[in-house]
Amino acid sequence: MNPFSFYNPTRIEFGSGKEATIGEHLAASNVSKVLLCYGSERIRHDGLFDVVAHSLAGQGIEFVALGGIVSNPVLSKVREGVELARAHDVGAVLSVGGGSVLDSAKAIAAGARYAGDVWDLFIGEGALTSALPLFAILTLAATGSEMNPYGVVTNEATNEKLSIGNDHTRPKVSILSPARMAGVSRHYLVYSAADIISHLIEVYFTATVQPRLQSRLVESLINTVIDTTQILLDNPADEAARGEFAWAATLAQNGLTFSGCAGFSYPNHAIEHSLSALFNVPHGAGLSVVMPAWMKWYQDQNKPQFERFAKSVFGLESAEEGIAALERWFDEIGTPTRLHQLDIAESDLPAIVDNVQINVKAFGIADAYPPHVVTDILKRAL
Amino acid sequence: MNPFSFYNPTRIEFGSGKEATIGEHLAASNVSKVLLCYGSERIRHDGLFDVVAHSLAGQGIEFVALGGIVSNPVLSKVREGVELARAHDVGAVLSVGGGSVLDSAKAIAAGARYAGDVWDLFIGEGALTSALPLFAILTLAATGSEMNPYGVVTNEATNEKLSIGNDHTRPKVSILSPARMAGVSRHYLVYSAADIISHLIEVYFTATVQPRLQSRLVESLINTVIDTTQILLDNPADEAARGEFAWAATLAQNGLTFSGCAGFSYPNHAIEHSLSALFNVPHGAGLSVVMPAWMKWYQDQNKPQFERFAKSVFGLESAEEGIAALERWFDEIGTPTRLHQLDIAESDLPAIVDNVQINVKAFGIADAYPPHVVTDILKRAL
Repeated sequence: MNPFSFYNPTRIEFGSGKEATIGEHLAASNVSKVLLCYGSERIRHDGLFDVVAHSLAGQGIEFVALGGIVSNPVLSKVREGVELARAHDVGAVLSVGGGSVLDSAKAIAAGARYAGDVWDLFIGEGALTSALPLFAILTLAATGSEMNPYGVVTNEATNEKLSIGNDHTRPKVSILSPARMAGVSRHYLVYSAADIISHLIEVYFTATVQPRLQSRLVESLINTVIDTTQILLDNPADEAARGEFAWAATLAQNGLTFSGCAGFSYPNHAIEHSLSALFNVPHGAGLSVVMPAWMKWYQDQNKPQFERFAKSVFGLESAEEGIAALERWFDEIGTPTRLHQLDIAESDLPAIVDNVQINVKAFGIADAYPPHVVTDILKRAL
Repeated sequence: MNPFSFYNPTRIEFGSGKEATIGEHLAASNVSKVLLCYGSERIRHDGLFDVVAHSLAGQGIEFVALGGIVSNPVLSKVREGVELARAHDVGAVLSVGGGSVLDSAKAIAAGARYAGDVWDLFIGEGALTSALPLFAILTLAATGSEMNPYGVVTNEATNEKLSIGNDHTRPKVSILSPARMAGVSRHYLVYSAADIISHLIEVYFTATVQPRLQSRLVESLINTVIDTTQILLDNPADEAARGEFAWAATLAQNGLTFSGCAGFSYPNHAIEHSLSALFNVPHGAGLSVVMPAWMKWYQDQNKPQFERFAKSVFGLESAEEGIAALERWFDEIGTPTRLHQLDIAESDLPAIVDNVQINVKAFGIADAYPPHVVTDILKRAL
């Protein structure tokens, strides 16, 4: 076990119907006006917007709405949110949606308290020393953003997809309502499954200090994601499986699984961020393409752990069999495993490889992932 | 998954040597005078007391010391602490020791802010609405008290062993220093292993709603406790195993493993509390006696989960084999499994059964555990 600090004060309120309590949570933090961030107009049609508005009104809380946040959220929208938050002098930011809305809300909450341009905080030109209090109602389980400080945003002018986050951008309260997640499309369910698994395997395979306990927790979560995805594909109305899938997504990226680990890195995310920045593919779909390719390339650097993965997750013996089983499972559930399924051709590789160099630098792994290595990895996904 | 709230803002600082940072954590909370609670004089001899005193002095923090807290901590000592805290007007309580010291510190922190007698808070005659801020340096991993709000104290006048706890009694910072745990005796190591396992199996076996994910997390933690206990018995100096054992103890009782579970109860603790209240046996030793007996009695009420336990923990097929394997493992590591090993005779049973009735009432399971049932369970431990 490596030394570590674990501090995660986000309050999780898990349960269908708890979205109607959001006003009480904001009132308990003395918020009287909030910026309500959301994505598509779906929440206007399915009743969630009204539930939230009613709950806020019940506590005498005003709100300003910012809709239209897209997946792979963009900087221009964040800047719009920062201006709105300032103009209306809101006391908090409320995200109603999935990880993209919440990541944008984090950037807005930080940007509203930062004197310069919010992008400074992403590129290290400014320090994140304060943020408006953040609250969330989650409608899509995948990124784990609801119980961690991180927010990823794409600067569409430069095609950089970068992240911010520290204790200031941890949500104060996140409401996870399985019933509100039931409308997620089949496609987004399987992309989310790939996203969650990606959060679990990066540290698991790359850490130089990886205690048994952390490996076991990761395997418990991966097996739960696999089981519950299968159940939900057969029966999207299974609320127990929906809830378990969501809680696994939260635990996969709340700091628990890598406490005590050391020497790890996030190469799959560094590579995928370029796919979604350049081609606007869903993050999870990009990850299910990158992961098997990266695993095939990387396995020899940590053979025992790949063998452990094969056995613990799929009951198989060899590293190769484990990787093949994961790839086959991605194929079966219908998340892509090859670049052409994302409409990305071999001729696109040089531009991707170039862009990945921004990310591997940001992730601190530029030495291990020079252009020829990234090319080698991506060619395995052709 | 049942609806749940998860809120655990305790900051964990894990790592050997981190005990020397305690002054900084207190200073960050603007504490200028603290009540330092500890157990035996061992910490005066092994240097820990000096490390703490030096760290406090470095931040200009005064302290008042309260030593001599015993395992199965008693109310009279808590009352002494409350008086001391009031007389010196301390701003916080610091526990340096294991679960007994920390549980006492919680009661003292709550009692110092309560106008009446602290025992009122245990028996529901007063409400725990405030407590002094709590800090901990843990020297024995077992109870999980470092990351939960609960404190258990025995009223030695009435032989009642009861608990308090809510968000007010959560430690603000808990420092887990594996090096400082290395001096734990062989006996206390195995009692602690039994204690941790008891925290994991109560919900696991009794819950009427028990998601797969929670079962997997529990099995991951039990397997880790078994592995690391074995390693530490062979080599007490193995700091990696020491750390992993400690972190498993924390996670076993910090709310994680039962989030989403429902309908569970704590019969083993209800029964054991009477053994330690009446005979002052170590809590873990009492639990390793009670657990196999209770499991044999209870197994038919949840056969599939007992079969799952047998398979996941011991690779065995039947419920009976799993229970026998756990009992055998307790025997092998040297924690008792029979009442006579605790110097408790069959003639003591009526007094124990009587006392258990106080606890099953406090735990809300009096209907399921009338005297004849408790007798039946305990007879299996003769």
